Amino acid sequence: MHTTEQLQQILDTAIQNLKFPDHPKQLYDPITYIINLGGKRVRPLLVLMATELFGEDANQSVHAAMAIEVFHNFTLVHDDIMDNAPLRRGQATVHEKWSTNVAILSGDVMMVEANKNLAKVNPIFLKDVLDTFNATAQGVCEGQQLDMEFEGRDDVSIEEYINMIRLKTAVLLGGALKLGAIIAGASEKDADLIYQFGENIGIAFQLQDDILDVYADPEKFGKQVGGDIIANKKTFLLLKAFELADGETRASLDTWTSYKEFNAQEKVDTVRQVYDTLDIQEIAKENMNYYRNKALAVFEQINVSDERKANLLTLTEQLMAREY
Amino acid sequence: MHTTEQLQQILDTAIQNLKFPDHPKQLYDPITYIINLGGKRVRPLLVLMATELFGEDANQSVHAAMAIEVFHNFTLVHDDIMDNAPLRRGQATVHEKWSTNVAILSGDVMMVEANKNLAKVNPIFLKDVLDTFNATAQGVCEGQQLDMEFEGRDDVSIEEYINMIRLKTAVLLGGALKLGAIIAGASEKDADLIYQFGENIGIAFQLQDDILDVYADPEKFGKQVGGDIIANKKTFLLLKAFELADGETRASLDTWTSYKEFNAQEKVDTVRQVYDTLDIQEIAKENMNYYRNKALAVFEQINVSDERKANLLTLTEQLMAREY
Repeated sequence: MHTTEQLQQILDTAIQNLKFPDHPKQLYDPITYIINLGGKRVRPLLVLMATELFGEDANQSVHAAMAIEVFHNFTLVHDDIMDNAPLRRGQATVHEKWSTNVAILSGDVMMVEANKNLAKVNPIFLKDVLDTFNATAQGVCEGQQLDMEFEGRDDVSIEEYINMIRLKTAVLLGGALKLGAIIAGASEKDADLIYQFGENIGIAFQLQDDILDVYADPEKFGKQVGGDIIANKKTFLLLKAFELADGETRASLDTWTSYKEFNAQEKVDTVRQVYDTLDIQEIAKENMNYYRNKALAVFEQINVSDERKANLLTLTEQLMAREY
Repeated sequence: MHTTEQLQQILDTAIQNLKFPDHPKQLYDPITYIINLGGKRVRPLLVLMATELFGEDANQSVHAAMAIEVFHNFTLVHDDIMDNAPLRRGQATVHEKWSTNVAILSGDVMMVEANKNLAKVNPIFLKDVLDTFNATAQGVCEGQQLDMEFEGRDDVSIEEYINMIRLKTAVLLGGALKLGAIIAGASEKDADLIYQFGENIGIAFQLQDDILDVYADPEKFGKQVGGDIIANKKTFLLLKAFELADGETRASLDTWTSYKEFNAQEKVDTVRQVYDTLDIQEIAKENMNYYRNKALAVFEQINVSDERKANLLTLTEQLMAREY
């Protein structure tokens, strides 16, 4: 069994070994660019960790891990077009650096590259691996669609929001873990359990993101604190605030979310005050902990020794403990 | 062995049976829309025909045929965004009818749907099927990229052009046939031969398209004759004309392809006259026949009785005989 650092080393090597044709340059250069922008590589790490959890060597699932990482980067490239985002990890997005057409087509070929990596897994597991990957990819697309639709709606319920973040971000964590489990020959029951663990912990992570975006320490936070508030992003916090607000708090929310021009810091401060009045941070944390505990309860049921479970549990706790 | 009409019936039923989730509507409605715009369904038909060519029942490859058809429609949706095309088969393109974002994301999920269909093939052939499909999909993306790049270049050679149409349109015909062959358990040699047949006949088809766009009977042609000339599309005919033109013909080509405003019919007539002077139609037909004959020579080498070969040969001849 490898340490987490060793697994990260395996991933780094595998990412360096991802080779794409030289030509046409405009098709393949963006792939190398986006993949080398970095990121924590949590998703491919989950693939490897799940494989080792069930007693198989992580090297068995490195192709599946690459499929997940390339697929994830493909969704970033296409999402950035749809969200009209200029920056990704502090650098120009692909459609900004090249063009929208290049970003569409490079994204498409990344999807093909993801599938090529997937096709390299042990043929015994291929059918299961494909079914899991395709269901995951479909969920991610549905999540992005819902996210876009929510922008134009003012009646999004908390339940719909949770379902959206489940699809947009959590199923990929669940899918990554399940792929790793399948390749280790885990039982169907255990593979489903680890999927559920991933999905629930993924929802908890996203709720944590929502909270940090408002309450992180500005000294440590990598981006502008309050960015979601400034953009009227329908996070758990804003939706819950609208659900609970009345009288003065409601009027304040209505006013500040309808301004076309405003002082950003003033908006962040005012909306955060409303959140504080309504105890939104506490409610969001309770919800986050609900999904975290659900994840951990499912994780306990997995038929593997505590010793084997330690790595994945430590990673989860580290990710949940981040304050920025 | 089924007749071509029976195979088309199998396809019609399978297409009707393609079911997508109801929700999110904006993600899945465009799929049903684009697939039901029709088309000749040549590509999925080739999958089925190749399967029967090698002695297996076409129903064995119907999922692969659907994968090819859904993938093809995915490329149409994304190509139409990139080409800024308002119409597809006389109807609004997906990005026109919905939006660019919807077209990007619906396209993405169509790629997933194609892969889901592919995953349903007999697991014995799954690895080979995936490798062939992924190589095909990658080629199609490369072809589209080259096609876009060629628009901004004035030094495209005939060789580059042939390679572009090979990738953009011909590899998908070859890939469709090879998938059908693999699922029928054809030998690797025969599967490669049928791929080569498809690739060469695909190039011949595209050259025929180039010729018909200029020389079709306007009474029978479904679209405007001369559309490629009006748009300065770098077809075989235009590239060859630029290669051969000098003096007056060169001046005429230079003039008419540089006009920003012009009378469309006058441009078509003048450029066609240049083509006639340079014998371009004849040269293009020779090239088309070169690839057709190459295809037929490869087809002959396939280790199957002439009787079994008849259906596919008849279809090919029908497609090559079309005058509009």
